[in-house]
Amino acid sequence: MREVLAQAAFQLFLERGFERTTVDDIVARAGVGRRSFFRYFPSKEDVVFPDHDRCLAEMTEFLAAVDDGDPVGAVCDAARIVLRMYAADPEFSVQRYRLTREVPGLRTYELSVVRRYEQTLAGHLRGRFGADGDGALRAEVIAASVVAAHNNGLRLWLRSGGAGDPEAAVDHALDLVREVWERPAEPSPALEKPGPAGVTTTGSGDNEVIVMVAAKGTPMWRVVQQIEAAVGES
Amino acid sequence: MREVLAQAAFQLFLERGFERTTVDDIVARAGVGRRSFFRYFPSKEDVVFPDHDRCLAEMTEFLAAVDDGDPVGAVCDAARIVLRMYAADPEFSVQRYRLTREVPGLRTYELSVVRRYEQTLAGHLRGRFGADGDGALRAEVIAASVVAAHNNGLRLWLRSGGAGDPEAAVDHALDLVREVWERPAEPSPALEKPGPAGVTTTGSGDNEVIVMVAAKGTPMWRVVQQIEAAVGES
Repeated sequence: MREVLAQAAFQLFLERGFERTTVDDIVARAGVGRRSFFRYFPSKEDVVFPDHDRCLAEMTEFLAAVDDGDPVGAVCDAARIVLRMYAADPEFSVQRYRLTREVPGLRTYELSVVRRYEQTLAGHLRGRFGADGDGALRAEVIAASVVAAHNNGLRLWLRSGGAGDPEAAVDHALDLVREVWERPAEPSPALEKPGPAGVTTTGSGDNEVIVMVAAKGTPMWRVVQQIEAAVGES
Repeated sequence: MREVLAQAAFQLFLERGFERTTVDDIVARAGVGRRSFFRYFPSKEDVVFPDHDRCLAEMTEFLAAVDDGDPVGAVCDAARIVLRMYAADPEFSVQRYRLTREVPGLRTYELSVVRRYEQTLAGHLRGRFGADGDGALRAEVIAASVVAAHNNGLRLWLRSGGAGDPEAAVDHALDLVREVWERPAEPSPALEKPGPAGVTTTGSGDNEVIVMVAAKGTPMWRVVQQIEAAVGES
């Protein structure tokens, strides 16, 4: 049913444009009732990206089970799950790519989808790096790099009309990121100094409290970083 | 007029929520006609981010004029233009940050704004690296890293309620990116600057420390407020 609705919607978007297609048009084409549509898709935008929720769930599951030894490699592999979803149906993926470039509302929607992947990858890295010191910063920057590299490779393939194997371009792009982030770092003056603040949480439930002790002169942003690390806020 | 409309809109968003405020409400509060609103802002979302167009223009101008020698440094400096826009009005920036976190439509809008900055930075790097070989790939990945690092530092400051100097956190974050993409790294003068205003309470001399206790669900800006109140800093 989901599939049938997505196909009907897409035919209509291509025939008469996204803006001029209504949900009523889609259910009429699919031969189902209006309520069926909203059971599967919260909005007309969602029907353009029917697989991202499943893909995000798969990514989360993969990362929960992955080996701890190579966190940057793990998030690169997690990104490849998205690639495989696109590669599984080249024709649909290419049509969607073209449609998305023409409809500003879809481009914005796609950005929010991409952001959810990025946050999922960053969350995994934060868990591995620890959110102390620069853990959260590194997690966010690496997640953004991985997503940008993946999308660069994916877009090359989509622009080519879905010809050939997209994996080579994406592997190459992700290798660049791994190579850069897994090279041993030369310490910079700032990185050598761990933040002098310590934060612990005690108690439980509603009575849980944060206790923070920081050396005189600790910058406020560092204090905030440390507290957030302790309470696990992202 | 632009300013007056933005202020009226923000008062209303804070009073009755973004969704329940109409453009008619905004123009009534500002004491102007409906057409004036749409002369300045294409939509209600745009009024929440009144300065980004100007900021993007400034960024483009800066990059067009910048020295060729250090492209990664140049895009980091370009990102700091955004930071300065936020830092110029801490109260407005913090209010907007809280509002944006509560209204999904604004978060999505903000993603599209961030994407425009990222594309501007990537465009500059592509011009410098050349689009051959990995030029475009490196441009996109570095632009994404710079934006993620900038936003990490900016968010720490926004979550702290706009307390202190946001530049230290952003400089630190951007330096991580430069260090990774420009090895061997040169220590930047920014890193040698001491952090923003320190916070102190008990002890004496070098052993002086802050001790802060807060309920776990306390919002970060409130925590920072409490720390500052305790040490008599504003």
